[in-house]
Amino acid sequence: MKWPHQVARMAGIEHPFIQAPMLGVTTPQMVAAVSNAGGLGSLPVGGLSPADTASLIQAVRKLTGKPFAVNLFAHSIPALLTHIQLDEMHGVLEQYYAELGIELVKQPAESMQFYTYADQIEVLLQEKVRIVSFTFGVLNDAALQALKKQGVLLMGTATCVREAVMLQDKGIDIIVAQGMEAGGHRGSFLNERNPPLIGTMALVPQVVDAVQRPVIAAGGIADGRGVAAALMLGAAGVQVGTAFVTCDESSTSDLHKQTVLHAADTDTVLTNVFTGRWARGVRNRFITEMEQAGLSIADYPVQNQLTAPMRKAASRENNKEFLAMWAGQFVPKTDPRPAADILRSMIQQAEELLP
Amino acid sequence: MKWPHQVARMAGIEHPFIQAPMLGVTTPQMVAAVSNAGGLGSLPVGGLSPADTASLIQAVRKLTGKPFAVNLFAHSIPALLTHIQLDEMHGVLEQYYAELGIELVKQPAESMQFYTYADQIEVLLQEKVRIVSFTFGVLNDAALQALKKQGVLLMGTATCVREAVMLQDKGIDIIVAQGMEAGGHRGSFLNERNPPLIGTMALVPQVVDAVQRPVIAAGGIADGRGVAAALMLGAAGVQVGTAFVTCDESSTSDLHKQTVLHAADTDTVLTNVFTGRWARGVRNRFITEMEQAGLSIADYPVQNQLTAPMRKAASRENNKEFLAMWAGQFVPKTDPRPAADILRSMIQQAEELLP
Repeated sequence: MKWPHQVARMAGIEHPFIQAPMLGVTTPQMVAAVSNAGGLGSLPVGGLSPADTASLIQAVRKLTGKPFAVNLFAHSIPALLTHIQLDEMHGVLEQYYAELGIELVKQPAESMQFYTYADQIEVLLQEKVRIVSFTFGVLNDAALQALKKQGVLLMGTATCVREAVMLQDKGIDIIVAQGMEAGGHRGSFLNERNPPLIGTMALVPQVVDAVQRPVIAAGGIADGRGVAAALMLGAAGVQVGTAFVTCDESSTSDLHKQTVLHAADTDTVLTNVFTGRWARGVRNRFITEMEQAGLSIADYPVQNQLTAPMRKAASRENNKEFLAMWAGQFVPKTDPRPAADILRSMIQQAEELLP
Repeated sequence: MKWPHQVARMAGIEHPFIQAPMLGVTTPQMVAAVSNAGGLGSLPVGGLSPADTASLIQAVRKLTGKPFAVNLFAHSIPALLTHIQLDEMHGVLEQYYAELGIELVKQPAESMQFYTYADQIEVLLQEKVRIVSFTFGVLNDAALQALKKQGVLLMGTATCVREAVMLQDKGIDIIVAQGMEAGGHRGSFLNERNPPLIGTMALVPQVVDAVQRPVIAAGGIADGRGVAAALMLGAAGVQVGTAFVTCDESSTSDLHKQTVLHAADTDTVLTNVFTGRWARGVRNRFITEMEQAGLSIADYPVQNQLTAPMRKAASRENNKEFLAMWAGQFVPKTDPRPAADILRSMIQQAEELLP
């Protein structure tokens, strides 16, 4: 069988190997390195301002002439928190802020400002981005039509069969099937408060059977064995995140890198306490204590904004108990190295295994 | 690569393809059919009396001269329930018993009797069983030594790397790595109340790297694609359960079969309300209401015994709301057929994919 050609042809790349978009981890350097090596780098811009979005895209362009994807968060803005909910969350967070020596600025709910993908579509069109991927939902029809009109290749994220079918019905070209092993945020959108947790081994073949679109397998794939396994399941390619967290081009903290490198298979947990959306990362004190507090967690991006200064201070203070240390269930125990080496060694190992 | 030969050689079988032991589903006919077709049937005898254990083994022997495994539950008997705990659980179960028109016999905790594997080892030795698999723990040293002395091949179940290493350290010959996709009971034993939920895609390569024993992949494998994928991950073979729930030789109710056949990928849930151990099955009213009641569930096998008459009546009454309908996250949508056909078609599909 060797490599399926469909996604490589559609995206204009050599191998259907996608570096997962990881906000806070992925840099333009990482995106360019993966794309230059024949894969597809993904630039995460979810929640960023139009100006930041443009400058990141331009930064990638300076480093590669190869195709890359720009990744959006396709969520909607949730209802405002009540004062009671906000007071309650402020009350709990205040102690952590104090412990880190920073002040909690109690911004009223109605003054919180968030960018959504709707603010970014114009930039993507202006910058003539060729590939747009998204997660947390489906882009609205206006955005889809505008992107399609400009010939943009669209990739959406599904965590169950029903989400995949909905993406197909919306005309999405390529479907990323994200198994529960994956690090970082779940892409779930049909039941995001109680998201489907289907393992990659079970999810991929069922999605492949349900849609007439190329399916990219994501979740638990961290070396060439996983790449080969995903192709056996019928995937048209793979998306890999955690293996790139520790690469030379990663912008995350050394603390995050070291913690992830030493994580056992059982060390990650799904939590919504950092951002308001379920995501997989290494357990620490903040996760455990917030679980025990039993608060209702604000939706994304409100909770994300409430904890952002705390996470920033924790990174500065080298305190891993208050950092979001996203990681999947399979962290390769390898020395730090360039992203291109990771991609090449995974492809080489897969090719040795594949027919 | 084709098929790895190690497990087939050790077990004296043709293909390293194991039919998962499923109490209440697996019959001697199923075991024999799989073994006669070149796989390894597994006879579940967990919790049965020595006499029942012997007669089931003899029933398989009448149907096949090929190797098969006998599967034990390696749990220990938990502390007795307090009267308060038991009263509370009786109080909740009473309404369901009444709804099904049966009487709840309120047996005091100290009069409950359970068989353990310790009661069964002598039978296995007498019957000269050649292959013993187990789950929920590790057999004690006396049992292991007695079995090893008689040359019995030992297979243990692990749900994380640490459990796999412990099985290796205890001298177990073959390790079944059970991913979270798997239907029925989790084999977890190091933290069984909060069991590891590692997806097969992430679990198998990490276990393969951690032990010097053949590793059998289990969880989410329901057709030849999964078999081929598991071998790519480094597994020495596969264990398949859910695909056999609906086979001709299955003894489960038609209701269970039909429900499983129509289950979507998102329809299963992990629950401990039926037996006191975490297991994956199709969600129904009993699971949901017991979750909402927020009771502390008695450990296995106490909870199992408390709900057994209810499940039996539900089966008789064709009421799926009170049945334990175990299933994994990937249920093949195929017509009922003989177990041997399922095994053969999975092997054939895998061989078409494998190098």
